[in-house]
Amino acid sequence: MSTYGHLFRVTTFGESHCASVGAIIDGCPPGLTLSPEDIQIQLDRRRPGQSNLTTPRNEKDRVHLQSGLELGVTLGTPIALLVKNEDQRPHDYSETDLYPRPSHADYTYLEKYGVKASSGGGRSSARETIGRVAAGAIAEKYLKTAFGIEVVAFVSSVGKINIPSSVPSSSPSNEDDDDVEDALSEEFRNLLATITREQVDRNPIRCPHAETAERMTQRIIRAKDASDSIGGIVTCVIRNVPSGLGEPCFDKFEATLAHAMLSIPATKAFEIGSGFRGTQVPGSKHNDLFVRREDGRLGTKTNWSGGVQGGITNGEDIYFRIGFKSPATISQAQDTVQYDGTPGFLAARGRHDPCVVPRAVPIVEAMASLVVIDQLLIQNARKTAASLLPPITTLPPTMVMPGAKSSAA
Amino acid sequence: MSTYGHLFRVTTFGESHCASVGAIIDGCPPGLTLSPEDIQIQLDRRRPGQSNLTTPRNEKDRVHLQSGLELGVTLGTPIALLVKNEDQRPHDYSETDLYPRPSHADYTYLEKYGVKASSGGGRSSARETIGRVAAGAIAEKYLKTAFGIEVVAFVSSVGKINIPSSVPSSSPSNEDDDDVEDALSEEFRNLLATITREQVDRNPIRCPHAETAERMTQRIIRAKDASDSIGGIVTCVIRNVPSGLGEPCFDKFEATLAHAMLSIPATKAFEIGSGFRGTQVPGSKHNDLFVRREDGRLGTKTNWSGGVQGGITNGEDIYFRIGFKSPATISQAQDTVQYDGTPGFLAARGRHDPCVVPRAVPIVEAMASLVVIDQLLIQNARKTAASLLPPITTLPPTMVMPGAKSSAA
Amino acid sequence: MSTYGHLFRVTTFGESHCASVGAIIDGCPPGLTLSPEDIQIQLDRRRPGQSNLTTPRNEKDRVHLQSGLELGVTLGTPIALLVKNEDQRPHDYSETDLYPRPSHADYTYLEKYGVKASSGGGRSSARETIGRVAAGAIAEKYLKTAFGIEVVAFVSSVGKINIPSSVPSSSPSNEDDDDVEDALSEEFRNLLATITREQVDRNPIRCPHAETAERMTQRIIRAKDASDSIGGIVTCVIRNVPSGLGEPCFDKFEATLAHAMLSIPATKAFEIGSGFRGTQVPGSKHNDLFVRREDGRLGTKTNWSGGVQGGITNGEDIYFRIGFKSPATISQAQDTVQYDGTPGFLAARGRHDPCVVPRAVPIVEAMASLVVIDQLLIQNARKTAASLLPPITTLPPTMVMPGAKSSAA
Amino acid sequence: MSTYGHLFRVTTFGESHCASVGAIIDGCPPGLTLSPEDIQIQLDRRRPGQSNLTTPRNEKDRVHLQSGLELGVTLGTPIALLVKNEDQRPHDYSETDLYPRPSHADYTYLEKYGVKASSGGGRSSARETIGRVAAGAIAEKYLKTAFGIEVVAFVSSVGKINIPSSVPSSSPSNEDDDDVEDALSEEFRNLLATITREQVDRNPIRCPHAETAERMTQRIIRAKDASDSIGGIVTCVIRNVPSGLGEPCFDKFEATLAHAMLSIPATKAFEIGSGFRGTQVPGSKHNDLFVRREDGRLGTKTNWSGGVQGGITNGEDIYFRIGFKSPATISQAQDTVQYDGTPGFLAARGRHDPCVVPRAVPIVEAMASLVVIDQLLIQNARKTAASLLPPITTLPPTMVMPGAKSSAA
Repeated sequence: MSTYGHLFRVTTFGESHCASVGAIIDGCPPGLTLSPEDIQIQLDRRRPGQSNLTTPRNEKDRVHLQSGLELGVTLGTPIALLVKNEDQRPHDYSETDLYPRPSHADYTYLEKYGVKASSGGGRSSARETIGRVAAGAIAEKYLKTAFGIEVVAFVSSVGKINIPSSVPSSSPSNEDDDDVEDALSEEFRNLLATITREQVDRNPIRCPHAETAERMTQRIIRAKDASDSIGGIVTCVIRNVPSGLGEPCFDKFEATLAHAMLSIPATKAFEIGSGFRGTQVPGSKHNDLFVRREDGRLGTKTNWSGGVQGGITNGEDIYFRIGFKSPATISQAQDTVQYDGTPGFLAARGRHDPCVVPRAVPIVEAMASLVVIDQLLIQNARKTAASLLPPITTLPPTMVMPGAKSSAA
Repeated sequence: MSTYGHLFRVTTFGESHCASVGAIIDGCPPGLTLSPEDIQIQLDRRRPGQSNLTTPRNEKDRVHLQSGLELGVTLGTPIALLVKNEDQRPHDYSETDLYPRPSHADYTYLEKYGVKASSGGGRSSARETIGRVAAGAIAEKYLKTAFGIEVVAFVSSVGKINIPSSVPSSSPSNEDDDDVEDALSEEFRNLLATITREQVDRNPIRCPHAETAERMTQRIIRAKDASDSIGGIVTCVIRNVPSGLGEPCFDKFEATLAHAMLSIPATKAFEIGSGFRGTQVPGSKHNDLFVRREDGRLGTKTNWSGGVQGGITNGEDIYFRIGFKSPATISQAQDTVQYDGTPGFLAARGRHDPCVVPRAVPIVEAMASLVVIDQLLIQNARKTAASLLPPITTLPPTMVMPGAKSSAA
Repeated sequence: MSTYGHLFRVTTFGESHCASVGAIIDGCPPGLTLSPEDIQIQLDRRRPGQSNLTTPRNEKDRVHLQSGLELGVTLGTPIALLVKNEDQRPHDYSETDLYPRPSHADYTYLEKYGVKASSGGGRSSARETIGRVAAGAIAEKYLKTAFGIEVVAFVSSVGKINIPSSVPSSSPSNEDDDDVEDALSEEFRNLLATITREQVDRNPIRCPHAETAERMTQRIIRAKDASDSIGGIVTCVIRNVPSGLGEPCFDKFEATLAHAMLSIPATKAFEIGSGFRGTQVPGSKHNDLFVRREDGRLGTKTNWSGGVQGGITNGEDIYFRIGFKSPATISQAQDTVQYDGTPGFLAARGRHDPCVVPRAVPIVEAMASLVVIDQLLIQNARKTAASLLPPITTLPPTMVMPGAKSSAA
Repeated sequence: MSTYGHLFRVTTFGESHCASVGAIIDGCPPGLTLSPEDIQIQLDRRRPGQSNLTTPRNEKDRVHLQSGLELGVTLGTPIALLVKNEDQRPHDYSETDLYPRPSHADYTYLEKYGVKASSGGGRSSARETIGRVAAGAIAEKYLKTAFGIEVVAFVSSVGKINIPSSVPSSSPSNEDDDDVEDALSEEFRNLLATITREQVDRNPIRCPHAETAERMTQRIIRAKDASDSIGGIVTCVIRNVPSGLGEPCFDKFEATLAHAMLSIPATKAFEIGSGFRGTQVPGSKHNDLFVRREDGRLGTKTNWSGGVQGGITNGEDIYFRIGFKSPATISQAQDTVQYDGTPGFLAARGRHDPCVVPRAVPIVEAMASLVVIDQLLIQNARKTAASLLPPITTLPPTMVMPGAKSSAA
């Protein structure tokens, strides 16, 4: 449904041509300093019309906070917000309405609901993501304030063009002789460890590798000029997440992360850590050996796991990739059929994004923040509850964590 | 937590060395004929010791139904079932207990709970999956009986060895000139359309391509002989799923599917339809054009979407891939540290699966069935509710489905 | 939290002095004809300032629909709506702010959140109920359209003044000789079977017994003149609810109903059917014997159960009572302490409702509708699922319902 | 459904004639010392056959723990437990099976599911409550260990026989002149403040007032001798609950409490604090004025609210009453109809409880514990999250709690 989360719970509403889109955020910790600008900055990154690579429909997309705050501080009560659809003239009927757009949601919405919005796929509109981005920005503000958590996403692929360090340098022919280093280069790992949003935003494509960004830009322009579209991959890293997040066995951290990411429109694939490529690497090379950190805590020498082991965060960086398909709405003629089965050619009218990944970056960051804050609140509950019990004295020391009674996450 | 699903809800329990493992299945449709054998058949496929490729620990893993049935018919009330841990001798302490196993859940469970099972990762034990498989078998029985739905998973990769038709034949050098056919060959698509469990089970590796199965077998034996492990990929197809399943916007069908799959131990990656590779293909080639089927309904000419559009099933086959990492527990010595930071070498004792994908096949099928039945029940609710309203007469015909008032899903 | 329901899900927001209050309704059946007036009519009944018995603050409380409809028909997507707080001037500080109001939420909100709205209890404001009433009106429109369900609430008591037929006529002295007829007179049962909203609204007190209404009015005026307040009881009946609603064992129909009713501000008590008084009546007199109805279905001769048996509706009228305490905010001086413990006298400023029950009537109706529609959708799912199975032939006839495979609820 | 709770989550299974009944408890805090005896003690109090007032079916009802513990300490993983149905011979068919028992669940289960257990109402069996009582005992062990929380329930009424101090001494004739003291005497309030389980268990009726207990006993014997049944009221008090529990606005503490209580079989009524009677008392007499406690915290002079204000606990004792109807199964002949509408007389075979309230006492305590622990874990999450933010410096002091950044609940 349109609600995400258990204790930090987001409910969104709105489609293309209605009065407004927005969200209610329930369960935001009280006492957080929050301004509309904390939210607007991410909405602006999501907004169409930021460059000549995205749809020119220029909406201002200003957020209007309705409740849950007073004098700039959250009260713990639901925060409602909305963004007006300034462009909400009634849908003007045309012959293209007779066709379900191929690979779009027109057909499936009609199958599901028996009725659909005149403009097509209803909630599958990209404007649905405004509520997510706004909610994610609030979650992120808390995570940054309370834990110093950093969430940074960027475009790592457009079509067949990749950040060079993000793809395997070679594929050894020997069936057994693989190495995870081939899949995830040291250069790329360094990028993950240090990348900032400022670096990501240096170009409109949101790829931090300048030369690749330029090639991606050209690729998107070629798609646009051909009345076509192209897909891509967004990579995201979350740093400074406490250990212990994730709930066995059905709500493992990566399971909830995958759920959140594949709820973003146009996504088709997700991998965490070494991902698909890592399945080729023997355990002896893939295992993340433990080391003792300077603060006395354990860390891992490598991080092929992507910060999650047994479904629970281990304190290392969490990184993952999401595949976005080529947008379905293209203006070249497609040989398809009408709702009633009559064959014909459909060419979408209007202007559409030839590639969604640059604008997907803040959406990925938002969903990542929503996953972390919800799991964090749940783990707070568990850890605090355990900390209120007397020390365990009847178990062998190997079964009990030294300092198990420490304060909550 | 340990509960999956909204209307068909599964709660599992149990770890390696406790009295039993099992599940409660709540919300099973009443009036379904169900025998222990319907469940046992999938438990047997999950069971270790089926071949020399899996751990020799031979448990009988007989299911014991506790409730929810009478005279072999489901009552609609919770079905409890359990499987005894026959091998539940107390964990005998050893020096290896001083070490958190690298890339295993020992460390993260201790971080989360402050206490852990003597045998290690608790619920991250493979025995946790028994409850899922049993629950999935019940769901599947309903889906097959009521809808003729078929769920078939198989091993498509082990390490670097793939079913030839499952991987791109070539990678054109031209940056723009990609074709989705390269990513998903006609031969492989035919395999997806027709494959049966009988074909899958012809060899213990559960790969339906005999020659590849033999190479996979040798690869696993090499891992075993080297006290090492290797990962792999499971592909799954679900056929005859009705259109309209999946809930915008956070519970899109593929989002709940990814959630379910990445809740299986050792998974790191998920893709549906054309997946990551499809992101390289322009929209004009990737879009699934509509055609009129003989029964008058719409279908799609191709199915790169994998049966889901806009997060809602369209009636075509649903297919997806899941990446399983190399098992973390290996018996060769690893240069790591103890819980207290003391450096040392850990070599796991006992026998362990060198590769999990053959046994993962029924687990993937189970989780797929749980996703489908839960979404199906939810869509039943919606479709039936809509069907009880008078016909819509005030909307333009393009907004209303012909036959919208048809019977429920 | 601020979300109610599973498949028909309402999330509300807003407090006294923020920009707006409202709700998102997710899961409304598609294809329902719905106008703002369908909602406004109940908001107007809830609105303060309808008579000299309620607070004079006259807000227009116009509903603004944001999404989920097109051309007056629901799309199945979330319906957002809001009502502006026209009176939202900043709270002007006064000495009374130093005091937590006795029996109000000021103190507990501060205990829970560590911060509170300047105006006091935040979400405990009566304006919070606007979102519920609006959502309930939408649910009710569906229930009436699809099932002819009728929900009517009214005031049966104010202070010690009761509709005569609603209270036991006498209390026999013999310990064993009680009769349920004493608790629930035939006259009152006839009232429940026939009462309409038009009858209820004939006077501002919303008590359908004219003479009693006049006495209640005088009682409230006396409370108002004394700077005091008084409580009361609302009785509600739901007619034409299908059998089979309610989920064993934790979500019995009456359990979810009690939950919903006691979530309304100022409620302290709930009883269904014969309630507390019924506990005194022996089973032989209290049991509802079955009879055969003209349509061949079973009904019950009496209905002391209030339409629910074993937690599941049986098709008879559902009726229940809710006790509302005297409003906590009164303008006479109270001998209490400040937040820091300093003793003093608090006299609330401004005008406040001396009695909430007349305005509670539409709120009770709204919550009743939300309970019924959510349980109805869930039962739709179950019943439709069962109807798709082949007939049960292996059970004795006494275990199977004749016509079990009938269409959904 | 058969699951209760969000973070401390109980799922139960089982009916009368299946192999076993039991529960899975998910989310129990790790590190809690727990023995089977902690659970058995409450199961024994629930067990039939404790005296000649309850059904003679003597089951041993021994709990068997399956998982979630090691060496007597909880691991944080699901605790499964079961109790065998020793008396599970197949239901032997009789003519009484042709009749739905009046006011029982036979008819409604068949309406809901289209199929029913041969023994009748399936999950409406009293044996369903075993899982609840076991789960509640675990919750209670945590609450007592970590917070010193005490939960004590007792029988306050059987039929028309009440503990004298529990009912209004008189009912003044003047319409305005009521006093809450009449509704809740000082003697009864003292009882609530001090009562222990030992006092409750001094007689089998579980009424702590000896003389009344004797009269209740005679009343039940009379019902039994007349092949009839009688209802009653259970009163419960929860002491030492922290302030801040309960979630606005739909999950107010009393709303979740009412939900839990009315999910117990045979319940029809619930009231908290002064309840229905309190609605007659003017606000000036009903408000709980604040006082400064010796520890510097605020308390209330009276506690007519029953420990909850604005839906959130205030730290005072929580007390409430639950009405249980007369058991529906009686052995005297009832003039009713068969499933097919044929008129006839039904006289239930076998022995049945003539009154359920003595055995309901531990069930009420169990549900109370489940409500408190779940709300406590949720509030832990919120309070800990808030405590990790920097102090609020921008709000007026009246909006911020002194010491808001204190440690978690």
